[in-house]
Amino acid sequence: MFGFNYYTPTKVVFGKGTESRVAELIREFGGKKVLIHYGGGSVMRSGLLKRVTDSLEAADIPYVTLGGAVPNPHLGLVYEGIELCRRENVDFLLAVGGGSAIDSAKAIGYGVTNEGDVWDFYDYKRKAAACLPLGVILTIAATGSEMSDSSVITKEEGLVKRGYSSDYGRPRFAIMNPELTMTLPDYQTACGCTDIMMHTMERYFTNGGNMEITDAIAEGLLRTVMKNAEILVKDPKNYDARAEIMWAGSLSHNGLTGCGNDGGDWMTHKLEHELGGLYDVAHGAGLAAVWGSWARYVMADCLPRFRRFAVNVMGVEPAGSDTETALKGIEALEAFFRRINMPTNLRELGVSATDEDLRLMAHKCAVGVNGAMGSAKLLREEDMLKIFQASR
Amino acid sequence: MFGFNYYTPTKVVFGKGTESRVAELIREFGGKKVLIHYGGGSVMRSGLLKRVTDSLEAADIPYVTLGGAVPNPHLGLVYEGIELCRRENVDFLLAVGGGSAIDSAKAIGYGVTNEGDVWDFYDYKRKAAACLPLGVILTIAATGSEMSDSSVITKEEGLVKRGYSSDYGRPRFAIMNPELTMTLPDYQTACGCTDIMMHTMERYFTNGGNMEITDAIAEGLLRTVMKNAEILVKDPKNYDARAEIMWAGSLSHNGLTGCGNDGGDWMTHKLEHELGGLYDVAHGAGLAAVWGSWARYVMADCLPRFRRFAVNVMGVEPAGSDTETALKGIEALEAFFRRINMPTNLRELGVSATDEDLRLMAHKCAVGVNGAMGSAKLLREEDMLKIFQASR
Repeated sequence: MFGFNYYTPTKVVFGKGTESRVAELIREFGGKKVLIHYGGGSVMRSGLLKRVTDSLEAADIPYVTLGGAVPNPHLGLVYEGIELCRRENVDFLLAVGGGSAIDSAKAIGYGVTNEGDVWDFYDYKRKAAACLPLGVILTIAATGSEMSDSSVITKEEGLVKRGYSSDYGRPRFAIMNPELTMTLPDYQTACGCTDIMMHTMERYFTNGGNMEITDAIAEGLLRTVMKNAEILVKDPKNYDARAEIMWAGSLSHNGLTGCGNDGGDWMTHKLEHELGGLYDVAHGAGLAAVWGSWARYVMADCLPRFRRFAVNVMGVEPAGSDTETALKGIEALEAFFRRINMPTNLRELGVSATDEDLRLMAHKCAVGVNGAMGSAKLLREEDMLKIFQASR
Repeated sequence: MFGFNYYTPTKVVFGKGTESRVAELIREFGGKKVLIHYGGGSVMRSGLLKRVTDSLEAADIPYVTLGGAVPNPHLGLVYEGIELCRRENVDFLLAVGGGSAIDSAKAIGYGVTNEGDVWDFYDYKRKAAACLPLGVILTIAATGSEMSDSSVITKEEGLVKRGYSSDYGRPRFAIMNPELTMTLPDYQTACGCTDIMMHTMERYFTNGGNMEITDAIAEGLLRTVMKNAEILVKDPKNYDARAEIMWAGSLSHNGLTGCGNDGGDWMTHKLEHELGGLYDVAHGAGLAAVWGSWARYVMADCLPRFRRFAVNVMGVEPAGSDTETALKGIEALEAFFRRINMPTNLRELGVSATDEDLRLMAHKCAVGVNGAMGSAKLLREEDMLKIFQASR
């Protein structure tokens, strides 16, 4: 067991109609001039953006808006947001949307409050000393960015996708109304469920430090997400299932499911970041597509955890060797992915990668992690290439 | 499922030797003049207080000290602390100890920053508008006050024990080194484990709103505490068990195990508060002494939850009617209490209560909750009296 820091200052306001409290919460956290940052047209079509701007106008809180945050949000829009905030003296950011809008807003927040190029933080060159205060109205349960310290941005030049983590970036408040996620396409809902599970699994498959209480929480969370993800395949408007998934999304990535461990593995995410950078695939689907290949490749080096996962999460009856039990757990999770219409390899993801593509991704991935990374098993460029090859 | 707010801004710094970071954390949260508030002599005997004052002196942070916080901390000392803080221009409180020191410090913090009598807040007369910032070095895993919004103070006159909850009172940081709890007497360790469990159970036994993910977390937490409490009976210096219990203590009362529910039941706590006010018994032992009688009295009105508790927490094999299964769960928890040397009735608690005592406690309890309270079953004065009688 390792020592740990746990810091989740985000005030969560969860339930039906909670978006009506947005102006009150911005005031509570000191916002006087707001940038409302969002993604595509869905928040306009649904009327949510109008309800938000109406609320701010009724409360006499001035604002400017910036749309256009896309999945794997782009650095170019971040620069645009920074300029806009400076020009308009914005002192509070409100992200309305999912991880793309939130991550993009975090990057804007770092850029406004720190000198120099904001990409430096994502390029591991230096650390941010501040961030503009940020609030969130969440419309997609997936990245957990509404409570997390992390954000992921893609630099268009060279399609480099990188994450940066800092407590300064943790949102001040997160408004979470499960009803707002009901209009999501089924594919995005399933991608979100996969991402949520993976945030806990990246922390779960480690070779050091795990606490029993953390494991119990992680396993309970994973079982809850799986059960409710399957409900949503058949009944996408089920409020309770939406709520379970939404809250699981925040708890999965706010640090809770990693307390006491060695920091986690995170290689499935790193591998997927290369997929996402090169092919612009949905993050959750990319994770599902590589996880099985990663799991089989590293299983022998982290067998007790894979066995435990099989039994406590996937409900596998232990029989035969630990390896057999562990393998059944991996197969059971892949079967679950298929039941919620997620891919379990690159072909199902819709990606036809050439040998050269795989080599490029493995190389960029290795560079991105400074040569090697992973707790379940330390992976180098040649390991990453083998996993990509196996996932094809 | 109900909507909820979840707000746990406390920065937790958990692990061996973490108390060495106290000065750095006080600075991070803006403290310039500190009141170090503690309980009895144990923090002096252990050398912890000296290490803390040395750290502050090395960092040039001026401080004053106030000891004497007792279990069921007294209002008189709170008044003394308020005076001291005002006289010395204290702007930051550091509680070194367990729930008594922390709760007493919270009350001092309310008193310093609000006009009028601080008891008004505990007497439900008005709400605090602020609290001095507060940090904690935790030495007893029990009340969860290190992350919670609540504090409990006893007014000496009439021995009135009352709780007050406000987000303003949530500590800014909590230093949690499980080693610091190793010198606790076994009885206090067991009392702490009981209190920790009860904070989750008060939220678990309800008739409304429960979420699956909250239940999964609650059940995992309860199983973890029971397993490690039994380890500590035989091996009190077991670091990992101490750590599991310590972290469970914070998670049990920071709101996490009640998300989505109707606010919880809390009647076992209210009943115990009267015991604690009248007899000055250890809080955890008082809870254990009345819980079984409360549970049997309310079980029929909350049967699905008691059945679920029996199966998912106590490991009861369902057999016979739901009532039989539920009852086996209650008996199993009482058997656990006995294994960790906790009482299961007033006699075992060492309290010989007269009929008049019981009537007085039931009356004070009913007044304290404005007539009636409880989610598992709504209890009035006559119900409270029957539970006290059954617990004798």
